[in-house]
Amino acid sequence: MNRLGRLIGVGVGPGDPELVTLKAARALSDAEVVAFFAKRGETGHARRIAAPHLRSGVAELPLVFPVTTEIPKCSAGYRDVLCAFYDEAASKIARELETGRDVVVLCEGDPLFYGSYMHLHARLAPRFAAEIVAGVTGMSGCWSAAGAPMAQGDDVFTVLPATLPEAELARRLADADAAVVMKIGRHLPKLRRALQCSGRLERALYVERGTMADAKMLPLAAKRDDEAPYFAIVLVPGWDRRPGADR
Amino acid sequence: MNRLGRLIGVGVGPGDPELVTLKAARALSDAEVVAFFAKRGETGHARRIAAPHLRSGVAELPLVFPVTTEIPKCSAGYRDVLCAFYDEAASKIARELETGRDVVVLCEGDPLFYGSYMHLHARLAPRFAAEIVAGVTGMSGCWSAAGAPMAQGDDVFTVLPATLPEAELARRLADADAAVVMKIGRHLPKLRRALQCSGRLERALYVERGTMADAKMLPLAAKRDDEAPYFAIVLVPGWDRRPGADR
Repeated sequence: MNRLGRLIGVGVGPGDPELVTLKAARALSDAEVVAFFAKRGETGHARRIAAPHLRSGVAELPLVFPVTTEIPKCSAGYRDVLCAFYDEAASKIARELETGRDVVVLCEGDPLFYGSYMHLHARLAPRFAAEIVAGVTGMSGCWSAAGAPMAQGDDVFTVLPATLPEAELARRLADADAAVVMKIGRHLPKLRRALQCSGRLERALYVERGTMADAKMLPLAAKRDDEAPYFAIVLVPGWDRRPGADR
Repeated sequence: MNRLGRLIGVGVGPGDPELVTLKAARALSDAEVVAFFAKRGETGHARRIAAPHLRSGVAELPLVFPVTTEIPKCSAGYRDVLCAFYDEAASKIARELETGRDVVVLCEGDPLFYGSYMHLHARLAPRFAAEIVAGVTGMSGCWSAAGAPMAQGDDVFTVLPATLPEAELARRLADADAAVVMKIGRHLPKLRRALQCSGRLERALYVERGTMADAKMLPLAAKRDDEAPYFAIVLVPGWDRRPGADR
């Protein structure tokens, strides 16, 4: 029987090409096969970040998301389409692993923190050796670019999706010392109200494309419109910039 | 008037020397002055991780924590001693910055996420240009080493200190899809009870020195004793390894 290949989930960080780790750079330059998620017609962030490190002639396995704009996101139909897509993507990778070739899966941020890689890991790790290269998360990239001290000492920190109902957002924001809210998009007006109600609006920072050259960041209270892309995030730093905050 | 130096907080990651980013490696090799926190008689993790990247002859500013074992941690006296220490550390760095030299502060993990660097940032960022190099957090290093998928989709994720009262730990654990509990030490028996009460004990993973060569990780339920160092962490992954968990 052939030696089986290893599945290697590699975090390539939040976007800044220099926020790739030495370990990721080595895994990328050693890679024989790289797989990555992408939308139809796009290369994908992770593939673009990895580009300078890949060998010419590396075998590429693009995993192209099905177009689902017609299907409501909360429906069983949507879940079924995505589930079938992840099944097929995992099968493609499994075929490579069965020939004994290692497959590097490129992951924005950190592979095991809100990343699509986990759908592959769940299907393949029971059958193949899997290795993870931790990465700098998108949220770390954002608060570093904003210079916003997030959490310290005994602070409670939480990550919330803006998709939660308004009252639950407000409750959870009030219940944490520091927070990151993700997946803003059309939920911005609701999030503003929840921040106001929880007394956190003054501290909230709005960040778009946090570690890109064209990053946009400003106090949310100073943002005049309610336009926000899906991947914008809001930071609620828990630790004020005053020596008295020392604990 | 002289040009002032820049304060540069550099995240060197969780311990594995390869989990340093390219940006951090460059900042370290360019550094003229490096400052770092250390306990008396020890070099400190951050300094050890940075070592291979520093120029020979780089100026070093060790910031040695005062010995506080005699003072209760919740007392005003303890806070005063630490506050004075951070004031003095910031003054030392300010003197370098005033001569126009940049100062790189070495930070384990990520500088703005539960790091001592923030005490310096709070004191110096109002007067000097400050730049942050995001790093891989200790918790990312741990869940990657454990291969534990943490959070996905609309999961709520939270970071809790084990110092919280038992009932509050239990309430917060039950209220989140995924959690990381830090600062375990002598709080382990209480944390076990809170995990049991919140129905999370089965999922909990105990991790010591997560990204070191001598890492120790096991299901918390399988850990026979209640010995744990202060820096051990407990992961409560929110996302099961089953395709049905796809959302």
